[in-house]
Amino acid sequence: MTTTREQIVPSGSSSAAIATSPIGLHRVLEPVGVLPQAAWRLDATAEIHHDEVRVRVERLNLDAASFRQLSDRHGGDGGAVRAEVLEIIRSRGKMHNPVTGSGGMLVGTVEAVGPDSRLGLAPGERIATLVSLTLTPLQIDDALAGWDGRSEQVPCDGHAILFGRSIAAHLPTDLPTELALAVMDVCGAPALTHRVVAKYVAQGRPPVVAVIGAAGKSGSLALAAARKGGAARTIGIVPVPAEYDRLTAVGLADEVALADARDPVALAKAVEAAGGPADITVVCVDVPGCEHAAILATANLGTVVFFSMATSFAAAALGAEGLAADVTLMMGNGYAAGHADFALDVLRSTPAARQLFEARLTGEHGAAHPPR
Amino acid sequence: MTTTREQIVPSGSSSAAIATSPIGLHRVLEPVGVLPQAAWRLDATAEIHHDEVRVRVERLNLDAASFRQLSDRHGGDGGAVRAEVLEIIRSRGKMHNPVTGSGGMLVGTVEAVGPDSRLGLAPGERIATLVSLTLTPLQIDDALAGWDGRSEQVPCDGHAILFGRSIAAHLPTDLPTELALAVMDVCGAPALTHRVVAKYVAQGRPPVVAVIGAAGKSGSLALAAARKGGAARTIGIVPVPAEYDRLTAVGLADEVALADARDPVALAKAVEAAGGPADITVVCVDVPGCEHAAILATANLGTVVFFSMATSFAAAALGAEGLAADVTLMMGNGYAAGHADFALDVLRSTPAARQLFEARLTGEHGAAHPPR
Repeated sequence: MTTTREQIVPSGSSSAAIATSPIGLHRVLEPVGVLPQAAWRLDATAEIHHDEVRVRVERLNLDAASFRQLSDRHGGDGGAVRAEVLEIIRSRGKMHNPVTGSGGMLVGTVEAVGPDSRLGLAPGERIATLVSLTLTPLQIDDALAGWDGRSEQVPCDGHAILFGRSIAAHLPTDLPTELALAVMDVCGAPALTHRVVAKYVAQGRPPVVAVIGAAGKSGSLALAAARKGGAARTIGIVPVPAEYDRLTAVGLADEVALADARDPVALAKAVEAAGGPADITVVCVDVPGCEHAAILATANLGTVVFFSMATSFAAAALGAEGLAADVTLMMGNGYAAGHADFALDVLRSTPAARQLFEARLTGEHGAAHPPR
Repeated sequence: MTTTREQIVPSGSSSAAIATSPIGLHRVLEPVGVLPQAAWRLDATAEIHHDEVRVRVERLNLDAASFRQLSDRHGGDGGAVRAEVLEIIRSRGKMHNPVTGSGGMLVGTVEAVGPDSRLGLAPGERIATLVSLTLTPLQIDDALAGWDGRSEQVPCDGHAILFGRSIAAHLPTDLPTELALAVMDVCGAPALTHRVVAKYVAQGRPPVVAVIGAAGKSGSLALAAARKGGAARTIGIVPVPAEYDRLTAVGLADEVALADARDPVALAKAVEAAGGPADITVVCVDVPGCEHAAILATANLGTVVFFSMATSFAAAALGAEGLAADVTLMMGNGYAAGHADFALDVLRSTPAARQLFEARLTGEHGAAHPPR
């Protein structure tokens, strides 16, 4: 059993004599008693409590939907966008767009670490936060003077607070920052895929793994993680010939197949022809209506892992019932212990994945990641 | 590996010389190539294929939402409701309300069994179908003459077809039909709960199980199944004092706690005080916004199983990430092999659950089941 999660612990060896909560309840100013993400306003005071970490922020990466809304609202007037972002952060104590409900993440350097912090961070380390800005206390000190308001990338000076329970990842020195951030953005998918595959392997039955949307960011890392985990066979499903060619060329999957994931019969046939049905099907395409296809392509007593934010809970649950499919339906949790380091290792050790990834970074985005 | 699911198999020893699909693709008339549930029109011809079963239908149970829509539309005019239901079945070959998208289920007697059917049914057996009427070929022979159009219960004469892969359950002779049907309606919850609990037990760590919405139909059976599966402790969470008293009185849970499942902090505290955090949290209340509470009440590396159709995929996936909660998020599949018989056995062997269940049946409904 782990320690309780909502427990209010008294400050320990810290100078701060205020009771703190590992999930940041003590930083919630209004309404009192809700989680930081649900709060209207957070306390972004620089002084840290015994289990907190303060980060000197060098850049915010605004959520794409949030930036688009702000930019559209102001007709692309960068100055006005900058002023509104500043006002949001000043009034809410966090960069939480009230219209889109989304935030983003940040890059910075660890400035101070409370004595009871268990995040494994040390002052001077360069990190990215992997929890949303919507729940991260933030204060800006430079009025965003270095930002033109015309890009999601916001250079800045200020500080942010990480709670006792938070997620931050060291930025590796051997990879370009952009590449590392792109990997971290989808790092839940390879971590969970690997974990599910490893369970099958531990039971002596290496699984057939099908990844739907296999040429995308989360999809390519999930494929690589499945192979690394000991999958008996990996099948990459892609929707268009260009992706078929690209995925085939890099050799990341044992089999590549072309199918529309919204067509259950066609997709199941494609997986079957590629050596299926799949013991594990991983859904990484952000297109609505893929639930039935994923279920139909999966073997009896198999597992479907949905990473797509377009997944409908009802369509999946009722779809499985309608198909009399005795399969485990998992929602892709964006967090798993060590997920960022694991994903970076997968990228480092899988040139094919890195190749796909870098091509994606310079080309269009086909991410299947949640807004942060 | 099981047999393929979308495979089109030629008829075997049957007289029908038509290729059939275990999921009924051969019964789809339009549009061709979609799943029966997605089809506008099915072929309800009485002649069965080699792996099909024909049922003589004695009663339809219309989905509540479907009946309400029809009744509202016709201002409660039973004759008009009956005429529209007849027309839907005639034109679509199934009772699939085009407005609500829902169907219901049926009760009947097995009339004919194809030689290759693997449903385990024999002529003369009284059964209920547990797949939706929205995908079940149906023909009515008596013009619904015995129905007044004023209730979801539709006595009738006609036939329905079950595919090679379908779900039907024998109606027990030792339980009232109404009680058996109510149990079958939520039988996915106890089956899956038991399966998840048993996995923990098999690993030598009997789990603490919290059930949110524990006094309802699916909740009470999930509680009973958790105890049957070897849970170390069961915690029943209910939202109102009346349910607290009722659940406490029957002794179905080791601990009962009162908490609003939409308040993460309050709910996690309640579970904690009752002996949590929970290794397994089962969500059985059909109220939106319970995802964060369930996640927060769950121990590190624990499991949350969502049976509520009000579950938001995004709220669950992003909520776990925001809380840095390394937990497994499962969607409650309405089907698991043997789920109906298992649920009935749970009811028979747990007088406390039966007591709650019967009280529910005569009182208000608080079901956490999907529309069929």
